[in-house]
Amino acid sequence: MTSSDLVPVPQRLLDAVNSPDDLKTLKREQLPQLAQELRDEIVRVCSVGGLHLASSLGATDVIVALHYVLQSPRDRILFDVGHQAYAHKMLTGRREQMATVKKEGGLSGFTKVSESPHDAITVGHASTSLANALGMAMARDALGQDYHVAAVIGDGSLTGGMALAALNTIGDTQRKMLIILNDNEMSISENVGAMNKFMRGLQVQKWFQEGEGAGKKAMQAVSRPLANFMSRAKSSTRHFFDPASVNPFATMGVRYVGPVDGHNVQELVWLLERLVELDGPTILHVVTKKGKGLSYAEADPIYWHGPGKFDPETGDFVPSNAYSWSNAFGDAVTELAKLDPRTFVITPAMREGSGLVGYSKAHPHRYLDVGIAEEVAVTAAAGMALQGLRPVVAIYSTFLQRAYDQVLHDVAIEHLNVTFAIDRAGIVGADGATHNGVFDLSFLRSIPGVRIGLPKDATELRGMLKYAQEHSGPFAIRYPRGTTERVPEGTWPTLAWGTWERVKSGDDVVILAGGKGLEYAQKAAADLPGVGVVNARFVKPLDDAMLREIAGSARAIVTVEDNTVVGGFGSAVLEALNAWGLTVPVRVLGIPDEFQEHATVDSVHARAGIDAPAIRTVLAELGVDVPLGV
Amino acid sequence: MTSSDLVPVPQRLLDAVNSPDDLKTLKREQLPQLAQELRDEIVRVCSVGGLHLASSLGATDVIVALHYVLQSPRDRILFDVGHQAYAHKMLTGRREQMATVKKEGGLSGFTKVSESPHDAITVGHASTSLANALGMAMARDALGQDYHVAAVIGDGSLTGGMALAALNTIGDTQRKMLIILNDNEMSISENVGAMNKFMRGLQVQKWFQEGEGAGKKAMQAVSRPLANFMSRAKSSTRHFFDPASVNPFATMGVRYVGPVDGHNVQELVWLLERLVELDGPTILHVVTKKGKGLSYAEADPIYWHGPGKFDPETGDFVPSNAYSWSNAFGDAVTELAKLDPRTFVITPAMREGSGLVGYSKAHPHRYLDVGIAEEVAVTAAAGMALQGLRPVVAIYSTFLQRAYDQVLHDVAIEHLNVTFAIDRAGIVGADGATHNGVFDLSFLRSIPGVRIGLPKDATELRGMLKYAQEHSGPFAIRYPRGTTERVPEGTWPTLAWGTWERVKSGDDVVILAGGKGLEYAQKAAADLPGVGVVNARFVKPLDDAMLREIAGSARAIVTVEDNTVVGGFGSAVLEALNAWGLTVPVRVLGIPDEFQEHATVDSVHARAGIDAPAIRTVLAELGVDVPLGV
Repeated sequence: MTSSDLVPVPQRLLDAVNSPDDLKTLKREQLPQLAQELRDEIVRVCSVGGLHLASSLGATDVIVALHYVLQSPRDRILFDVGHQAYAHKMLTGRREQMATVKKEGGLSGFTKVSESPHDAITVGHASTSLANALGMAMARDALGQDYHVAAVIGDGSLTGGMALAALNTIGDTQRKMLIILNDNEMSISENVGAMNKFMRGLQVQKWFQEGEGAGKKAMQAVSRPLANFMSRAKSSTRHFFDPASVNPFATMGVRYVGPVDGHNVQELVWLLERLVELDGPTILHVVTKKGKGLSYAEADPIYWHGPGKFDPETGDFVPSNAYSWSNAFGDAVTELAKLDPRTFVITPAMREGSGLVGYSKAHPHRYLDVGIAEEVAVTAAAGMALQGLRPVVAIYSTFLQRAYDQVLHDVAIEHLNVTFAIDRAGIVGADGATHNGVFDLSFLRSIPGVRIGLPKDATELRGMLKYAQEHSGPFAIRYPRGTTERVPEGTWPTLAWGTWERVKSGDDVVILAGGKGLEYAQKAAADLPGVGVVNARFVKPLDDAMLREIAGSARAIVTVEDNTVVGGFGSAVLEALNAWGLTVPVRVLGIPDEFQEHATVDSVHARAGIDAPAIRTVLAELGVDVPLGV
Repeated sequence: MTSSDLVPVPQRLLDAVNSPDDLKTLKREQLPQLAQELRDEIVRVCSVGGLHLASSLGATDVIVALHYVLQSPRDRILFDVGHQAYAHKMLTGRREQMATVKKEGGLSGFTKVSESPHDAITVGHASTSLANALGMAMARDALGQDYHVAAVIGDGSLTGGMALAALNTIGDTQRKMLIILNDNEMSISENVGAMNKFMRGLQVQKWFQEGEGAGKKAMQAVSRPLANFMSRAKSSTRHFFDPASVNPFATMGVRYVGPVDGHNVQELVWLLERLVELDGPTILHVVTKKGKGLSYAEADPIYWHGPGKFDPETGDFVPSNAYSWSNAFGDAVTELAKLDPRTFVITPAMREGSGLVGYSKAHPHRYLDVGIAEEVAVTAAAGMALQGLRPVVAIYSTFLQRAYDQVLHDVAIEHLNVTFAIDRAGIVGADGATHNGVFDLSFLRSIPGVRIGLPKDATELRGMLKYAQEHSGPFAIRYPRGTTERVPEGTWPTLAWGTWERVKSGDDVVILAGGKGLEYAQKAAADLPGVGVVNARFVKPLDDAMLREIAGSARAIVTVEDNTVVGGFGSAVLEALNAWGLTVPVRVLGIPDEFQEHATVDSVHARAGIDAPAIRTVLAELGVDVPLGV
C-alpha cells in the first residue's frame, strides 16, 4: 500500500500539533501522515503566490524528523537561507499565522530570532548556517552546557565559500554537531559547480527516482548498513556506507553518513536518534525532491521555487506579463553581447532572477554561473577585465554586500572595466530586512573610482550599459525590483556622461532624485509650478555644475533616495555643498537608519517617508503651497 | 658534493638575468645556482626590516621554474597575496629597485598590475588568485586566444572560502589552467583547519625533512612515477601518484599532481613543461619550506615572515620593545576573559598580528582561529552571541571589508552582542593601497545599530571593551597600527557612553577628532588659545548634545579622521548638523577619495592633509592666528 492509497482521515493530525511537544505524542507510524498534512497545508498557504513553495515541500519530512528527535528550542535547529522552513514554523506554534507570511506585521518568509524562540538564526542570505552552528557549538562547550546543534543546509548553499570555509574549521575543531545536507540537486536555479558533481557521485542509489516501490527498496537499502551502524560509527572508520574514495567531507574530519532518502520520515527519526549521540561533527546527506508530493512542482521546481498565485489542485497559474527591470537588463545585455564580443555576463546562481535565461542561451560561451559565491563572481570579473573582456556582474544589491572587498580590492584599485548590474536595489518588500538593497549607494560610494548610475527607465539603463562597455573603470548601475517599459531593440541612446537631467522646471525648491525616488518626486511635484525635479541619475560623480547652479538659485533642495540616509546620495550632496562652502537648506529623504521589516514596497516607502505624499509634506514644511488632497 | 661545498663563482648568474628571456638562456643545471643567488639577494634586501622574508625564500624555486617554462607576460602568472613574489620581481626587471620595496615611490610589497606587465594581478588580500585565474582562462577562451594561466597559492590561502568556492567553479568549467599549491604548512600564523590536516595527509613522503641526501632521494621518488607520467595523465585516471582515497581536488574535477619537492627546480621545470600541455585544470602540489636556505628563518618562520632589521649572516636582531595597540588589546582582552566567562576571542589567522599569542595560551578554550575566513569569524561570533557568549572578533580593518555582509546580515539585524576589535584602522603605510583600513567608518556607519568607538589610548580601549561586554548590541572599536602606552593591570575605567571629551578648551574654532586624528589635532592646536579640541571618540552615535553646543558657539568646526572623506566621520557631522538645520562652516579633513600608495604612515597623512601642519594650515585659512614655524 503506498501513501496515496490511504483512506483520508476525518480529523487531521496537524490540528492537534501546535508545538514540538505535541508532535512527540504521535506514534512514529503517524509521522508520514503528519508530513503529508503539512505539505497540503503548505500548498494551500502558498497558492496565494509569492511564497517559497518547492523548497518548503522538499524539507518537510526532514523537519518533522528533527523536531520529533530534538528538543527545540533548547536544542538549536538552524535552517540555511531559512525559506524552506514553513513546516518548522507550523510545528512551532505559527500554523494559524501562516497566511500572514511575508505580509506587513506578519511572519517572516525566513526564520527570524525575534519571531520565535524556535528560530535559532535570523537569515535570508545563503551559506551562513555552518558558521553559526560552529559558533553555537563552541559557545555551548565554553559555557559547559549540553544541547544539540543541528544545521539544515541545501546543496546549493554548501557551494558558498563561507560554508566550505566553515566546514574547514568544523572539521578542525571537532565540536559535536549535526549537519543535514539537504540535497535536492538544485538551489534556486539549476546547481552548478564541482561540488554538485561530487554530490551527484555520492548518490549511488537514487531510490526516489525509481518509481513505485521505491519506499520499500529505500528501507532495505538503508536498513542493511544500519544494522551494525552504532558499532561501526564508533570505530576508527569515520564513514557509514559511503566509500571514502569519493568523500571530501571525511577527509576534512567530518563524519559522513548517507545518502539516505530524505522523505522517509521514520527512517530519518531512527537515524537521527542515533546520530545525535555521536561526538564530533556529522554530516547526514539526505536526498530530497524539491516540490515533493506536488506533481507540477516536482516537474518544474525552478518555477515553483517561488511561484505566483496558482490553483492548488491543478497547478494552473496566470503567467506574468509584467516586464521587469530584470527583463529589461537581460534583453539589453543579450543585444549588447551581439554588438560587442567583449561582453561577458556573470551571475552568482541567479539566472532566472536576474533575467538571464535568454542571455545564457544566446551567449553560452560568454556566460558564467559561479553558484552562490558572490566574491568569486566579482573577482572572476576582475580577471576577465584584466584580459580584455568587458564583464558584467549581474547581482542583487543585497548580495553585492558579500563582495564589498572584492569590488574594492580586486576591481577598484586597478580601475578595471567591470560593470555591476545591481538588481533589487532599494526596498524589496516582502523578503524584508535581510534582502533590502538599501546600503549599496553608501558602501559603493566610499570606494574610490566606482561610478554609480541610477537609470530612470529601460532606455537610460541601455545608455548606461553601453557607456560602461565603451569607457574605462568600474561602473555600478542600480535599478529596483519592479516593472518598467519595454523598449524597441536597437535602442542605444548616447548618455551625456555624469550629467543630471531637469525633468521638471521650477526654481523655488528643487528635488534631486534618481531611480525609484525620481518616480515619486515627479508625482509629488506635478502640480507645483515652483518645484523643480532633477533626474539625479549619477550618484558618483555628481553633476557638480548643475548642483552648484541649483544651490545658487533654489531656496531649498530636497534629495530623495531608496537607500539609507547614512552616507548615501543625500550625504553626497551635503559633502559637495559643504566642500564648496555653499549653504542652502537640504532635506534628505531616504530609508531611516534602522532595518525595515517585510511589507509591500509601497508601504515601506510610505513609512520611510520617501513616497509622493511624504515628499509633498516636506515641500509644505518648506513653505511650498501644496494643494490638499492631491 | 652539496651546494654549500661549491666554490663561489666570481660572476653571479643573476647579474645577467634581468628578464624571463635572459633566464631562458641559462641551462637547466644552472637554475639551482640562480635560485640560490636570488635567495641570497632576498635575504640581503630583507635585512633592512619590514619585508616579507620567509615566504619569498620558500617560493623562489617555484618562481624560477615557472618563468623558465612559461612566457610572461603573455602567459599569466598569478601570485596569491603577492608577498612571496620577490624572486618574480627580480626576474622581471626590478632587481635594481628591490631596495625600494614598500618605500614611498618604490616597488610595492605585493604584485601590482600598474607596476609591471609581468604582474598579472594587483593583490594583498588572500585567496583571490583562483577566481582571477578562472576569469582569465574564460576571457582567453571567449576571445579565442591561447596562453597559459598559472596561479601560485599557499596552503593558508586555499582555506579561504573564496578560494574553495572558486575551485568549485574551476572544477565545473574545466578551463585549462595550472594551480601551484605552495604548501609550506603555515600561512602567517600556524595553519589551522581541516584542509590543512588533509594536506598533511597528502605528504606521504616528506623528502625535504630527511637531511643530507634528501635531494637525491627526492629525485628518485619523483622520477619513478614521472617515467610514465604522460601516458597516465592522459588516461581516465585523473591523478598522478596520489591515492584518490584522500583527494578532494580530484572529486571536484581538478587533476591533482603531487606532492613534489618545491625546491628541486630542475624537476619542477621538467614537470611544468608537461603539465602546461594538459587540458583542463591541474593542481600541482609542491611542498616548500618557509625561510628556505636560511637556518634561523627555517627554524622560526612565524617571526621571519616579516622580520625587523637583522644581520643576514647571523640572524641577530634587536627585539622590539614597542608596545603596540595590538599588544594593548591582547593584554586587555586576556585580563577581561579572566573577569568574564562569556568572553571569547576569534581571529581569522592573525594570532600574532592581533596580539593574541598570550590570550590563546591563557584561554585556549575560549579562543578560535578560523583560518583566512573573515566571513566565518564574524558569523561564528553571531552564533556564539545567540547562545550567551560575548565574542570579540579581532580583525584588521582591511580584512573586515570581507565580512561587511556578515556584520550586517548575521550580527546587526538581531543586534547581537558582538565586539569588533578593529586593528590597523586608518593608513597602514608600507603595505599600501590593498591594506589601508580607511573605509571602515564609512561602511560600518551605514549599518543600522552598529556603534563605533575610537579610543584615544589603551585606557580608553579598555573602557570600551568593558562597556561592550556589559551592554547589548554590536560595537566596533577601531585603533591604528602603531604604538601606545602600557597601562597597569586592573585598569577598567567606566566610559561615559556616547560622550565626547573636551581635551582642550577654545571656542573660536573647534576640532573634532578621534583616534590618530586626535593626536594630530592636539599637536596642531597646543599653542592656539582660541582653538578647542574634542576627543570625538564615538563616531556612532555622535555626542549630539556636545555637537549642538559647539555648533551654536564656534565660528567653525574642523573634523579630522584617518578614514576616507566619503561617508565617514565628517559626513556624519554634516548629516547631523543638516538634520538639525544648523549652519556652521565645517572643514572635513580625511583621506581623499583615491587609493593611497605605500609610504610611511606619516607621509601619507601629510599628503592627505590630516597631520598637525595640515590642520594648522586649515586653521589659518579659517582666520585663526597661527604662529609660523611651530
